[in-house]
Amino acid sequence: MKFSQIIKNLNPLISDHSLNYNTYDPDLLGITPIEEAKSETISYIEGDKFANKVNDTVATALILPNNKKLQEDSTQRNIAWLSCQNPRLLFAQTIALFYQPFRPQPAIHPQAIIDPSVIIGREVYVGANVVIEKNVSLGDHTCIMPNVVIYPEVKIGKNTLLHSNCTIHERTQIGNNCVIHSGAAIGAEGFGFVPTPQGWYKMEQSGYVILEDGVEIGCNSAVDRPSVGTTRIGKNTKLDNLVHIAHSCQIGENCAMAAQVGLAGGVTVGNNVILAGQVGIANQAIIGDGAIASAKAGIHQNVAPGEVVSGYPAISHSLYLKAAAIYKRLPEMYQTIKKLTKLLD
Amino acid sequence: MKFSQIIKNLNPLISDHSLNYNTYDPDLLGITPIEEAKSETISYIEGDKFANKVNDTVATALILPNNKKLQEDSTQRNIAWLSCQNPRLLFAQTIALFYQPFRPQPAIHPQAIIDPSVIIGREVYVGANVVIEKNVSLGDHTCIMPNVVIYPEVKIGKNTLLHSNCTIHERTQIGNNCVIHSGAAIGAEGFGFVPTPQGWYKMEQSGYVILEDGVEIGCNSAVDRPSVGTTRIGKNTKLDNLVHIAHSCQIGENCAMAAQVGLAGGVTVGNNVILAGQVGIANQAIIGDGAIASAKAGIHQNVAPGEVVSGYPAISHSLYLKAAAIYKRLPEMYQTIKKLTKLLD
Amino acid sequence: MKFSQIIKNLNPLISDHSLNYNTYDPDLLGITPIEEAKSETISYIEGDKFANKVNDTVATALILPNNKKLQEDSTQRNIAWLSCQNPRLLFAQTIALFYQPFRPQPAIHPQAIIDPSVIIGREVYVGANVVIEKNVSLGDHTCIMPNVVIYPEVKIGKNTLLHSNCTIHERTQIGNNCVIHSGAAIGAEGFGFVPTPQGWYKMEQSGYVILEDGVEIGCNSAVDRPSVGTTRIGKNTKLDNLVHIAHSCQIGENCAMAAQVGLAGGVTVGNNVILAGQVGIANQAIIGDGAIASAKAGIHQNVAPGEVVSGYPAISHSLYLKAAAIYKRLPEMYQTIKKLTKLLD
Repeated sequence: MKFSQIIKNLNPLISDHSLNYNTYDPDLLGITPIEEAKSETISYIEGDKFANKVNDTVATALILPNNKKLQEDSTQRNIAWLSCQNPRLLFAQTIALFYQPFRPQPAIHPQAIIDPSVIIGREVYVGANVVIEKNVSLGDHTCIMPNVVIYPEVKIGKNTLLHSNCTIHERTQIGNNCVIHSGAAIGAEGFGFVPTPQGWYKMEQSGYVILEDGVEIGCNSAVDRPSVGTTRIGKNTKLDNLVHIAHSCQIGENCAMAAQVGLAGGVTVGNNVILAGQVGIANQAIIGDGAIASAKAGIHQNVAPGEVVSGYPAISHSLYLKAAAIYKRLPEMYQTIKKLTKLLD
Repeated sequence: MKFSQIIKNLNPLISDHSLNYNTYDPDLLGITPIEEAKSETISYIEGDKFANKVNDTVATALILPNNKKLQEDSTQRNIAWLSCQNPRLLFAQTIALFYQPFRPQPAIHPQAIIDPSVIIGREVYVGANVVIEKNVSLGDHTCIMPNVVIYPEVKIGKNTLLHSNCTIHERTQIGNNCVIHSGAAIGAEGFGFVPTPQGWYKMEQSGYVILEDGVEIGCNSAVDRPSVGTTRIGKNTKLDNLVHIAHSCQIGENCAMAAQVGLAGGVTVGNNVILAGQVGIANQAIIGDGAIASAKAGIHQNVAPGEVVSGYPAISHSLYLKAAAIYKRLPEMYQTIKKLTKLLD
Repeated sequence: MKFSQIIKNLNPLISDHSLNYNTYDPDLLGITPIEEAKSETISYIEGDKFANKVNDTVATALILPNNKKLQEDSTQRNIAWLSCQNPRLLFAQTIALFYQPFRPQPAIHPQAIIDPSVIIGREVYVGANVVIEKNVSLGDHTCIMPNVVIYPEVKIGKNTLLHSNCTIHERTQIGNNCVIHSGAAIGAEGFGFVPTPQGWYKMEQSGYVILEDGVEIGCNSAVDRPSVGTTRIGKNTKLDNLVHIAHSCQIGENCAMAAQVGLAGGVTVGNNVILAGQVGIANQAIIGDGAIASAKAGIHQNVAPGEVVSGYPAISHSLYLKAAAIYKRLPEMYQTIKKLTKLLD
């Protein structure tokens, strides 16, 4: 692809018309990470850490921050460059020009097993060994990869993608433009057992899961249905791999949860919340809009909107940083206190 | 369903004959969570948090705690109510009157692939694309959902349910009335590698997994087989999603482990133990009967019967609460010690 | 098997010719754990914890440490024994004499669905309901268990084993002698979303995953592909169950990662690194050769080669042990400081 072709494609995507670039026009064969950039590829200088790469990379083109110095250095080294306010977004948009993930042509594989009651939209793909039970509906342009199983009464919207070996349980509702990655289990029974003198009594889980439009669920993640009512994940919220969402959780829009996050039953999460890897949230906690939890935080209580929390038990991030720094000095503090006590005796 | 019909069904289940109720007899169409209760449904007032809902809910019937005030308030608002000593159990029993999970009629799907040596009990369901290898036996009323794979020499008891996309590895023994949820892997090779100057030497895992009667394993959980002997999970123990049980663990009866718990090799867990979410237990640790570990606890040593532990490393829960409260004051303590030291110099 | 036959088989495997044994020659039917050893089996005395078992076990033969006392006691009790410098390795080698895991004979199951473009080596097994997309190649002696799905352009080396229900995504490269356990997802899209005023913008993941020779990936683990470039796991590195490796991670050779470990994006791990269960490593951190992280460590910064770290945030293990010991005394320290302050006022 010509560099000028990239500019032509990206220009309409930059809403504030602030795309900058020089006028070299090399041919480009692909996109590469800056650490291993090759000739005839375009690469991305992310942040200060890689800034000096401008001076020795063999990349033929670069996506740069809005930084005059780097731009001049690139031009001087005969490197084509482009930049804008959000170079990471530019990087993402450029990748999409070179690469689209595997997506098969619409077709129903003859070895898919589909109940006659299933309603299938236009331009749908259903792969081999997919099993779809009674009264399921699949929206237009939906893509169900091989070996997926869909239990009865599930509704799936338009242009949604289910990767191989995932299981969608009864009555789950999945919106438009969702992606469910391999091995994920959506709508399985919540973990509900009532202690009795005779042991655990199983509470049937009569509720169901709702994934709103644009939700993405990572590989081998699990979103459970509740005993009554719904478990809901709001519009455009993205979950990474191996995440656990227990019964009855109500999660807002535009959140992101990194891998191995676990939410206990009935947790409420607002909009635009970010949970880093391995965060855990206890039963019934309420996390306000825009809150952020650092990796491995253990949240036992409500978190206010916009709050940043860390640690276990989670406290405000700024306090955590100070306390964690002093944690290392505990042995020394202990000795000092001992000395002081002796001195005063 | 008539309210009186619910009472009629539940009365024999309440072992101490202590079911209380008023005499309204409305028609009920379903069961709903109290936060979003609708007319013509029955709902559940759980604990004090929702007690005031009695005064404004539109639910037509309520399951209540044994609380005179709430009962009188309900009657006054023309709400049918019932209560007993264990209202949560009553709630669970009521759900089961309105809802039963999807369970297909007994049948062997023509696209299941079953070795001729497999022994199949009466009234068994085997779904599409299930693969069952040599010398497996399936007890009466067992239900194997689509796309499950069962390796050779596996024994499965009566009335056990395997959800889609789970894998049962060689020689696993699963008892009666068990549930294995989607994507779970039972009996795969334990993580056994011996360090040598030439690198890791793989230790073959010749043992097998035993799940006793009434065991439930959550979605995408893994229970590994050991190098020799068995990995055992005792009667009626329940595991949530994404739990890891390493080789040789010996787990007692009636335990509950929440999501993302991980047990290292050779851990022994007694009966009636409760492990909250993301708890980790180190190699060979012994957890006594009735012990409880709070969410995210990291257990490196034995835990005595009945002990409640928290924190990382795990200590007694009461001590943990105090230490965690003071953790936040570490910066302030550090400053005070500095001041005191200066003063005494 | 005769005991002398075991000796005969093991002798050539012990590189330093230091295999010791007595001359009893019983018949042995199997190998058992010492806690439940039976007559006519061989068992293994591991470390001091089980040393006194020599005096009461009913095992007919024992693998012992190089310990004269234990050897004499065994001989006196008419127990055949063998020992060498690395008895754990001896144990592993003995298991392999009695047991080999299930591995089907080479064959392509008629109900496997294989694109005509797929290149299949000699002596390959492809099980029922396996789906293999375009331009995949499978090396000689490869074994693909039932219900595996392989996306397009995947390359798999020789003698590699894929267990049931795992999914290998587009363009993944898997070396020779690898094992991918049930439910694992290799090469799925990395978790890449760029925040914009309109919400998350999906960054396509055009890179791919490389698993070098001898890599093992545990059940339901996930190794993601990056936006550009590769995610790489080096030769003979072993991952346990439910491990998450994010996009762009570069992992060295001969590492071991226990269950539920999570690596965020772009982490670099050297050779011979050991990560215990539930360890988390933050974005872009660099872990030096031979480093060790204790269970549940939360690593936010680089770790030097050979360093042992523990805790959250992770610090040097020796400091952690001291600080953790004093953590329990925080309430007492707090009171002492209060008293001292009062005294000085």
